[in-house]
Amino acid sequence: MNDAHLAMGAGGEFDRLRAIYERLGDSGHALGDDCALLGVQNATLAVSIDLSLEGVHFRREWMSPADIGYRAASAALSDLAAEGGRPAGLLVSLGVPDAGELAPDIMAGVGACAAEVGAKVLGGDLTHSDRIIVDVCVIGTAPRPVRRIGAQAGDGLWVTGSLGGMRLALNAYRSGRRPTDDLARRFARPTPRIAAGQWLAAQGATAMIDISDGLTSDAGHLAAASRLALEVALERVPCWLGAEPLVAVASGEEYELLATMPARFGEKQAQAFAEQQGVALTRIGSCVVGSGVRFTDRGVAVRVPAGYDHFAE
Amino acid sequence: MNDAHLAMGAGGEFDRLRAIYERLGDSGHALGDDCALLGVQNATLAVSIDLSLEGVHFRREWMSPADIGYRAASAALSDLAAEGGRPAGLLVSLGVPDAGELAPDIMAGVGACAAEVGAKVLGGDLTHSDRIIVDVCVIGTAPRPVRRIGAQAGDGLWVTGSLGGMRLALNAYRSGRRPTDDLARRFARPTPRIAAGQWLAAQGATAMIDISDGLTSDAGHLAAASRLALEVALERVPCWLGAEPLVAVASGEEYELLATMPARFGEKQAQAFAEQQGVALTRIGSCVVGSGVRFTDRGVAVRVPAGYDHFAE
Repeated sequence: MNDAHLAMGAGGEFDRLRAIYERLGDSGHALGDDCALLGVQNATLAVSIDLSLEGVHFRREWMSPADIGYRAASAALSDLAAEGGRPAGLLVSLGVPDAGELAPDIMAGVGACAAEVGAKVLGGDLTHSDRIIVDVCVIGTAPRPVRRIGAQAGDGLWVTGSLGGMRLALNAYRSGRRPTDDLARRFARPTPRIAAGQWLAAQGATAMIDISDGLTSDAGHLAAASRLALEVALERVPCWLGAEPLVAVASGEEYELLATMPARFGEKQAQAFAEQQGVALTRIGSCVVGSGVRFTDRGVAVRVPAGYDHFAE
Repeated sequence: MNDAHLAMGAGGEFDRLRAIYERLGDSGHALGDDCALLGVQNATLAVSIDLSLEGVHFRREWMSPADIGYRAASAALSDLAAEGGRPAGLLVSLGVPDAGELAPDIMAGVGACAAEVGAKVLGGDLTHSDRIIVDVCVIGTAPRPVRRIGAQAGDGLWVTGSLGGMRLALNAYRSGRRPTDDLARRFARPTPRIAAGQWLAAQGATAMIDISDGLTSDAGHLAAASRLALEVALERVPCWLGAEPLVAVASGEEYELLATMPARFGEKQAQAFAEQQGVALTRIGSCVVGSGVRFTDRGVAVRVPAGYDHFAE
């Protein structure tokens, strides 16, 4: 096993990834970050891939084809955002059940999301498939990449936006209800935090990860990679309107950024972030010596639910 | 529609791609080559993505999980070979039905194929899926990229290896027979023609494409992109042992290279290629003024079957 692979937090999904890294041996390269970093001549490339699958990540009754494409592209761009990267382009593999308008409609959504962050659709593949498959590979540059490794004891722990909306929307869809317009839009068209990630990188972020598995799990990955402990104050976690904190910390596919910032970074800087990015930045905890993630609620230790595991469903 | 997109040959699949390019509008970038080319600082990146799907591209009864991974990686690397590119790494999205050994076994095959051409597995995504999905994105550099556009009237038309083995293997599997060991190996572990593509690029190849849709279709794409006609002598097409020429020219997923070479490139150079690459290089025709692909059999015009269309099955 390549020693350069990053440590990950607990959970069955991550045991499965560890088994893959082990089998790859020397043919694997520094696995386990949001993006792979690749030096090409004088540039540092940051690349990532993200698979969205009908019946697992979405259902057709929930979203328009264009929304399906937009959300899949945003999910992939979120990994680049977490590296502080700048997108160059996307490659998209598409599987669709019929030869009609579905593929062009999905790709129109991918293109709309790409355009929002100044990226281009560079190419792709198209295949017949019973269920819709949208796999998006994002290629960007990261002149100052921020990895999961690098957080220092004493750093503050910050999160963009508010959490829990994705789970609320999912709960509504799964129980056959239509979520509010705000929630439906949050679910279908999450804003890629590309500009936010670059801002945090420029301000000296020491480590960063995007919230795709849920805050609990992703904080665990960051702590494991950086070989320290994270303390999170549950009452400080910014929650989507109507979401309990225990829901917010377990909600996956949020595509917000979790960043560790040096101690000098404070509320004044967070205010500047909010003004420039149009989204909140909230301090929810700290980095300390140790391992794992500890949650407290107004000073009292609490247990929180882990994220969502597709294979365990 | 972006004028920089390449023209493609005839066929329902390519009408579908044209519909996608149209919907992408300005968010699409120079679509339609084997690889997308991307200038990053002083480097020219060549990137491509290739989706392999259980039930469409392979069945589990036909191949081991490691073979499934190897073949999917080779398919993606073939696009880079056709650009004359040098691989840097692969990203792999994987969908598997269970959390057992399947994913590590498939990735071991991907890793083995990557190792054969000096590439690394950089990262990926893992999702639950009823059917196996292996989507491979290849990232490389192409200091002297060879595109589908660029062939000149008077150039010779050359093909690596021999064609038709893939269709013979497929026919055997589909009728419940076990192909010969040679054919089974050809089907499961096609050699990525990376070194061959670089050799042809260095020798001045004016245009190149890999044979994934079948010689008939891929020659049509090259002719359309280069805005000229191709004349192919059917009796010169190198056929896999037991494959008729009419089978060989329609056989898809061959992953051999079809290249146009300047007139000065002749049998002596082809002999040098064969000695260095361990595979044949055969002249099968010429580039002439006009459009489309014309086949002759010992001087007599013949009609040949088109390639395979997943959606038309």
